[in-house]
Amino acid sequence: MGGSFEVIRSRTNAVLKRARNVGRGKEAGFVLIEGERLIRDAVSAGHVPEVLIAAEGQLEAYRDLATNGDLATRTEFRVCADTLLEGLGSLKTAPGLAGIFREPATTAIDGLPGLVGDGPALILGVAGIQDPGNLGALVRVAEAAGAAAVVVAPGGARPFGSKALRGSMGSLFRVPIVLPESLGSAVERLASLGFEQCVGATRGGQSLRSHPFSERTVVWMTSETGEMPAELEGCTGITIPMRGRVESLNVTVAGALLLYAAASGATGRRELPAILN
Amino acid sequence: MGGSFEVIRSRTNAVLKRARNVGRGKEAGFVLIEGERLIRDAVSAGHVPEVLIAAEGQLEAYRDLATNGDLATRTEFRVCADTLLEGLGSLKTAPGLAGIFREPATTAIDGLPGLVGDGPALILGVAGIQDPGNLGALVRVAEAAGAAAVVVAPGGARPFGSKALRGSMGSLFRVPIVLPESLGSAVERLASLGFEQCVGATRGGQSLRSHPFSERTVVWMTSETGEMPAELEGCTGITIPMRGRVESLNVTVAGALLLYAAASGATGRRELPAILN
Repeated sequence: MGGSFEVIRSRTNAVLKRARNVGRGKEAGFVLIEGERLIRDAVSAGHVPEVLIAAEGQLEAYRDLATNGDLATRTEFRVCADTLLEGLGSLKTAPGLAGIFREPATTAIDGLPGLVGDGPALILGVAGIQDPGNLGALVRVAEAAGAAAVVVAPGGARPFGSKALRGSMGSLFRVPIVLPESLGSAVERLASLGFEQCVGATRGGQSLRSHPFSERTVVWMTSETGEMPAELEGCTGITIPMRGRVESLNVTVAGALLLYAAASGATGRRELPAILN
Repeated sequence: MGGSFEVIRSRTNAVLKRARNVGRGKEAGFVLIEGERLIRDAVSAGHVPEVLIAAEGQLEAYRDLATNGDLATRTEFRVCADTLLEGLGSLKTAPGLAGIFREPATTAIDGLPGLVGDGPALILGVAGIQDPGNLGALVRVAEAAGAAAVVVAPGGARPFGSKALRGSMGSLFRVPIVLPESLGSAVERLASLGFEQCVGATRGGQSLRSHPFSERTVVWMTSETGEMPAELEGCTGITIPMRGRVESLNVTVAGALLLYAAASGATGRRELPAILN
């Protein structure tokens, strides 16, 4: 697509205006990604920006992106005065690079069977997580634990806002995201696919230490306040044993402990002399 | 100690000035604690504030504190215009309650044997964590996993700053904090007490899934950037298996997985049919 040699020097420039709009979630279907690391993660995962805006003073570091095959033909490259990259999105300090990307493609619930196959599989289900940073962090740990997909029920943080993308450290570009029409329909479909459905429960559930996870497991994580949606009442509550006078764990920490415990079951590696087995 | 009936209506009031100073870490030996929940946690753990400042509009919710035995005799109670509680410490919105507390007592390295006894014991060691929120969150998960103490080596975030206290959700008031003179002296002393010393290693260590943790284990967590201090080179590196293209996990998440895995060993519960055993 090329671009322009003209350096943007005005905050009211149309490209910057659009970037700010996208950063505020006001242009459906697009996301603003800030910072070299996250943009390179997106590009490595096959995502091609519509627009890349580089700070004049840091241009050298990004020159290779302009010769990347897909980007060279499909991306509009712009250069702008360094400080004008401030305040585009959620970063407090100006990043050297910002990009407007199409939102990663998501999968409808009907596409789930194609993602999880017939054998052992682990899925993270998210129902009502409000903080986009927590949502992103959960997707990061789900990828690390080997989840085949993340199901995000309606009614919580958007998976592709800037904060969620940043919290995921790029995992949201790589893990398939399934968006069901409702939590109930997701639960029903997962049951029909033979998944054991577990849900993190602050208290009263089966102990994480003794629950024998199935080879096909969904770990549902619910809102930070601990409210349990009615649709998940039939799930197996799993409680992380806590000593001292700790009342709860951070939702990402809890999710990590559950996903790693379930992963040992879900990958069928019971024969290992394993701590997490 | 009583207090004053006079409602503080000026930002330059001496009590507020002191609270701001303490909030900025400028009065050695004292900490500012903001918010009802954290203050009640501190009080429940036996800490008595020197001063409690309540917002006029929310006074009713805190009246019981004024009749608490120790506080009634030792705390100066003040009431202030609601908005004046803004900007005392690290909170973005004004808390309804703020308190000036003495820093919780810490233990020198010589006090460690008294904290850990001779049997199974788990310790969290912190060496170079820079973000106070991460430090607090690690102490929270250490308490939950049953750690007998947290050793904080010099050179990282202060354990009793406002952000660390908040991140710990009160755990910093309850878990004994050991402050050695140096990382090297802590390592030496722990070895002499028969502890296996493990350290989270992003790559190249023994797998968390297969390492047989000892009944007396220290889990060292190092700086967020992954730098390994020379003093910890003799420790057993433990690596959390990661799939996908995740390069690392958040330090709190990694700490949680290590502490919970080590806890199963450290409590000698190998006979359980356990996920984390």
